Amino acid sequence: MEIEREIEARRERIDAVIERYLPDAEENPYFEKKLREAMRYSVAAGGKRLRPMLMEACFELFGGRGESMHPFMAAIEMIHTYSLVHDDLPAMDNDLYRRGKKTTHAVYGEAMGILAGDGLLNFAYETVAEAMAEQAADRDCLNRMVRAFGVLSSFAGIRGMVGGQSVDVESESLPPSAMTEDKLDYIYEAKPGALIQASMMIGAILAGACEESVGRMQAAGRCLGKAFQIRDDILDVTGNPELLGKPVGSDEKNNKATFVTLRGVEQASSAVESLSQDAVRILDGLGREDTFLRGLFLYLTDREH
Amino acid sequence: MEIEREIEARRERIDAVIERYLPDAEENPYFEKKLREAMRYSVAAGGKRLRPMLMEACFELFGGRGESMHPFMAAIEMIHTYSLVHDDLPAMDNDLYRRGKKTTHAVYGEAMGILAGDGLLNFAYETVAEAMAEQAADRDCLNRMVRAFGVLSSFAGIRGMVGGQSVDVESESLPPSAMTEDKLDYIYEAKPGALIQASMMIGAILAGACEESVGRMQAAGRCLGKAFQIRDDILDVTGNPELLGKPVGSDEKNNKATFVTLRGVEQASSAVESLSQDAVRILDGLGREDTFLRGLFLYLTDREH
Repeated sequence: MEIEREIEARRERIDAVIERYLPDAEENPYFEKKLREAMRYSVAAGGKRLRPMLMEACFELFGGRGESMHPFMAAIEMIHTYSLVHDDLPAMDNDLYRRGKKTTHAVYGEAMGILAGDGLLNFAYETVAEAMAEQAADRDCLNRMVRAFGVLSSFAGIRGMVGGQSVDVESESLPPSAMTEDKLDYIYEAKPGALIQASMMIGAILAGACEESVGRMQAAGRCLGKAFQIRDDILDVTGNPELLGKPVGSDEKNNKATFVTLRGVEQASSAVESLSQDAVRILDGLGREDTFLRGLFLYLTDREH
Repeated sequence: MEIEREIEARRERIDAVIERYLPDAEENPYFEKKLREAMRYSVAAGGKRLRPMLMEACFELFGGRGESMHPFMAAIEMIHTYSLVHDDLPAMDNDLYRRGKKTTHAVYGEAMGILAGDGLLNFAYETVAEAMAEQAADRDCLNRMVRAFGVLSSFAGIRGMVGGQSVDVESESLPPSAMTEDKLDYIYEAKPGALIQASMMIGAILAGACEESVGRMQAAGRCLGKAFQIRDDILDVTGNPELLGKPVGSDEKNNKATFVTLRGVEQASSAVESLSQDAVRILDGLGREDTFLRGLFLYLTDREH
């Protein structure tokens, strides 16, 4: 499929961008070498690079030129990665494998897993701070970065990803019957929704889009994020473990309330279809020429892994 | 003592500043309430508020006016607090009490302890981002904030506090005899050194001090941070548990290599004396009228708790 080849080509380019912003493993080979290794290991473990890919595509959609979004692409992937590293810890999901590779704490120990996550979260903001310092003379660019920094930090925080994670963690100690639809909505909007929304908004902001357009990207990101997560829930029931690179049935095994356990696969599939159409409609409504984002939306909500 | 009254008066004022920037416990009472509570609990557990106090005093020293340093004072205390919350986790120091109060994970559970730390670190940068957005029209102020953000993020990260913490953690799995003087120097410079240096530098930057003065504040902060930590090591041997609010002898019990275990109390005391004089000399060398910082330096390196 054409779109798959394009996604793969972009993923490779994005890997190279992220690599440029990761901490140098050799900068201080004597002292905090292990920490730097653990941070690089966590990010190098791969993944779809969905957030930077969405950010770049939205930047292009609004006619962005240059590389001002590169540090933010790296930063949002660092934030996404730190959240996975902390999620995998024994006190959280206690996962030893992710995407077929050992998780960070499984390789480096639990204390270093905590610190690698802390290091990545902080390094994301260091990366943003450096990018801002470089643009201090270009007032327009700096102002866009200030807005982008505001979106990044607020959607990654208690009103976004961390907030959602905390409610998810709390819910796991309750019986699945205690899950309500609006609590699940809140969790999905925050996780993975918040960073997906932030990626699309930041791409638009850095390209110079107006407030209204940024709001539309947020709305599209909200639909896409929710569709993406429900598709994940469906794949956990109907997916092919080989394609997924992980066992299926884990939600049921862990007694976890998801959209699928609340409503069944069929309703979940129609929700994905309808959310995905909503996202595409918002995109089309912008009336901009798009060569990639629409295809990415449809691919993501119809994916098999 | 005059200086103790002044420190206490400032600490109370700083508590009020920090309180203004903490996440509102009631903003979202239904969902991430527990997380907000855990974050507020962690910060409210108290402490000397040394970092914001140094920041404010340096801001005043360089003639700073207004409140542009307030969000940074709150942010650095949030970063300091997150590091304590994560340090106390079972996988790290496994402490159930700090300053006579239960630690965050002891009250809210380990998963919420991790997330409260993550939330505080992220919220520190959210606070900075909001302050920047408010100053977007005042170019000079924004540029100072960009510099301050750079210092904050870099000294809190792998080249600073997190880096030092990772080496400290690694060292704990080694026999104390594996500790070298330059490794211990590195750890002390990073922890607590990095945030102490950053506090003083940020106070100077936000007041509009020149690069050279900021460099001098960093040098003074380096001396002060090291003296402060060695004084801590000494108090762990000679201190009064009631004044300290914690048991003494924990370094020896934990087989931890410190300046005191490497060199003995006497050499440690001369090191504190000499570092403290160095810090004061750098301060005096600025030729600025100071009503508080000098006294704070001397108090901190001579403190009994």
